[in-house]
Amino acid sequence: MQSQTIKGFRASFLDAIADPFYAPESDCMRYFADGLLVVEQGKVKDLGDYAKLQTKYADIPITSYPDRLIVSGFIDTHIHFPQTEMIASYGEQLLTWLSTYTFPTERKFADRNYALEIASIFLDELLRNGTTTALVFTSVFPQSTDAFFEEAHRRNLRMIAGKVMMDRHAPEFLQATAAYSYQETKQLIKKWHHRDRLLYAVTPRFAITSTPEQLTSVGQLLTEFPDVYLHTHLSENVQEVEFVEELFPDRAGYLDVYDHAGLVGERSIFAHGVQLTDQEFARLAEAKSAIAFCPTSNLFLGSGLFKIEKAKSKETPVKLGLGTDVGAGTSFSILRTASAAYQVAQLRSQKLSAFQILFLATLGGARALCLEDKLGNFEIGKEADFVVMDLHSTPIMSLRNQLPNQRNGAIASTLEEISDQLFATLIMGDDRAIAATYIMGELAHKV
Amino acid sequence: MQSQTIKGFRASFLDAIADPFYAPESDCMRYFADGLLVVEQGKVKDLGDYAKLQTKYADIPITSYPDRLIVSGFIDTHIHFPQTEMIASYGEQLLTWLSTYTFPTERKFADRNYALEIASIFLDELLRNGTTTALVFTSVFPQSTDAFFEEAHRRNLRMIAGKVMMDRHAPEFLQATAAYSYQETKQLIKKWHHRDRLLYAVTPRFAITSTPEQLTSVGQLLTEFPDVYLHTHLSENVQEVEFVEELFPDRAGYLDVYDHAGLVGERSIFAHGVQLTDQEFARLAEAKSAIAFCPTSNLFLGSGLFKIEKAKSKETPVKLGLGTDVGAGTSFSILRTASAAYQVAQLRSQKLSAFQILFLATLGGARALCLEDKLGNFEIGKEADFVVMDLHSTPIMSLRNQLPNQRNGAIASTLEEISDQLFATLIMGDDRAIAATYIMGELAHKV
Repeated sequence: MQSQTIKGFRASFLDAIADPFYAPESDCMRYFADGLLVVEQGKVKDLGDYAKLQTKYADIPITSYPDRLIVSGFIDTHIHFPQTEMIASYGEQLLTWLSTYTFPTERKFADRNYALEIASIFLDELLRNGTTTALVFTSVFPQSTDAFFEEAHRRNLRMIAGKVMMDRHAPEFLQATAAYSYQETKQLIKKWHHRDRLLYAVTPRFAITSTPEQLTSVGQLLTEFPDVYLHTHLSENVQEVEFVEELFPDRAGYLDVYDHAGLVGERSIFAHGVQLTDQEFARLAEAKSAIAFCPTSNLFLGSGLFKIEKAKSKETPVKLGLGTDVGAGTSFSILRTASAAYQVAQLRSQKLSAFQILFLATLGGARALCLEDKLGNFEIGKEADFVVMDLHSTPIMSLRNQLPNQRNGAIASTLEEISDQLFATLIMGDDRAIAATYIMGELAHKV
Repeated sequence: MQSQTIKGFRASFLDAIADPFYAPESDCMRYFADGLLVVEQGKVKDLGDYAKLQTKYADIPITSYPDRLIVSGFIDTHIHFPQTEMIASYGEQLLTWLSTYTFPTERKFADRNYALEIASIFLDELLRNGTTTALVFTSVFPQSTDAFFEEAHRRNLRMIAGKVMMDRHAPEFLQATAAYSYQETKQLIKKWHHRDRLLYAVTPRFAITSTPEQLTSVGQLLTEFPDVYLHTHLSENVQEVEFVEELFPDRAGYLDVYDHAGLVGERSIFAHGVQLTDQEFARLAEAKSAIAFCPTSNLFLGSGLFKIEKAKSKETPVKLGLGTDVGAGTSFSILRTASAAYQVAQLRSQKLSAFQILFLATLGGARALCLEDKLGNFEIGKEADFVVMDLHSTPIMSLRNQLPNQRNGAIASTLEEISDQLFATLIMGDDRAIAATYIMGELAHKV
């Protein structure tokens, strides 16, 4: 599946090597205006200025992308593949949106062939948008999880997914007992976890649809398989939080429901967290858990404004990634998600810089998924999943990204200039800004 | 400039003939799944089911757009043409954004040739996005206003614009005295108002940058030319409102500053109104003034969430249109603006339906601009500015808008189905969803 040869890519390169929420941006970002990326057996072998490296790699085949920006593949830390077709469903907030649109749609995924068809569309759409790794909800049906992993495997993608677990407050046709789901999940872990690039996440939907017994059995799975992930929803919507408190009167709050069952750990990723308290942020920081910030979803469902300044504070730093949360999120594009993230921050009087957003979409996401050793930037030895960006993909972006006294379409020569061009692209861009997507150094999508 | 012949367009047609915020949607919307629009000398001569009209118009040339939706041209009730190139500028809220980015950029528009160049790009971009009429800020320089009107005239567009008036709290190079601006504006009104389709709006930037003397002279212009418009900003941002109250301690509030000068009338359009009080909504309703709701701008600058439920209430109904507010707004697309409007409403626990949004973008906008007799739907005699929409312009929109048991790409046959397809297109769509734009029945843009 991956090339055995060594090869190079010449373009502009930008990556994050540290977290620009906590250190000066110039210390966190690397920019090579005319750079060379060397890939061997699907992994990064070298990155630097073309002028410095060209002699060393004089004999390797080089693919050139003049005036294009290459960044690490985007990481989507929360998305639902069975909701692909119900994106942009009208008019509801979380709980009624689930019962009106989501549950009837997910029922279709009992059909393995249907699940394969949608998984294929879903993964192609991710690649079209430059997303190379995602943490994915499948449906309650193990055959849908199999379908997803098969399609991801066929594309050689690093994907994390799991079967949804629900044993109450959902239609009968989507429920299985705690014991039954436990068994199904166990089989799926054995089948898929660490199969080439694939990884498994134990995936109870959320506290409302799991009995305490089910949450306990999830905790048991995490003990039995200490390097699988835990992926669920947390504190998205006010009514949801109230309902959880009603269902679990003995717990100190929503997060404590999960904590009590042993689900709050270093490999736990909680989607949303819009309604989290200060104490809960502190607990997540202490446990080294991660939050998937899903701004287009939070805006579309009217859930509220995520307190990014708490998650990225010095006092309670929580690992944070961006999530599209399709189908409550309204776009597969990390760029459109970035634009919404900026808006949410602005409404909270916070500034999110282009580099901070790029960090969240790449290295931050990799850290949230405990994949920092494999993904997130171009450090030597990492997997060469990357995106070729066109910063001039529409007439208006071309005008906006014109550099003073440079020819049309020219790319930045300094970190300051690329910050500005990238910012405009994050705010205005969409799938058209993704000229190509590479997986382990192999072309997987191009415009 | 316009065809003298009679001609037809066959497609699906949707328009609003009444306000769906105040009456059942089925009473407000017309949908012809297979319709025929007849245009004569640039105006609507007929609209109906193709099957019913085909015999009557058997001899006219017909352009067919199968599976496309034709709607009235979009109306953008607030936009700044000199800010085209500074769209998506980073990091500031209103007042610092103005001084950091806007004022230096607007300075360039003293150069007539530069203004012509940007006006041309700006108008092409509007047409690419299906916007056929806009209420436009130019710059303080009359030559920029001339440039804008010349380019709009060349394209036979119905546009409303005006020169910006400022006599304080702005850089010296952008200020003119009240008397000087009065004279310049008067000359521009005489030159452009009612020249073919063009109309003039007297355009003081906002209360902060106009002395009481200037506001008085604006009121005088409105008295001398009773059918020109008044276009300004109102209550966008908390700090702005506080500053206005400081500058005008004798006034009852921000709106009262304008009211005192005689600027609050039926042809007055106020951009934003995010911070308006209940009393101010009541006064705007009473005066029959209009608000331009600019959601991408309000989110991007973090200004706040417009109280759409107040503007569209039974108690204080205010004429309302959508505005992109480029360059604080982040897109020329009314579709992306629609998506942001839906988000703002959701965050206020309000539902905005597809038809309500379409109304705001068409007939609502026409009413806000007192152009209901000329624009906003396909009633007989109105100007034939319209948009051909592709509801399947991306792979994911194609999947989402697939109808049950229909071939791929099929368009709705019922009002309920078109409501759903339109909703998804408003939420996910962009310029690619605009297959073509017609001005007075003539093709002005196509993909």
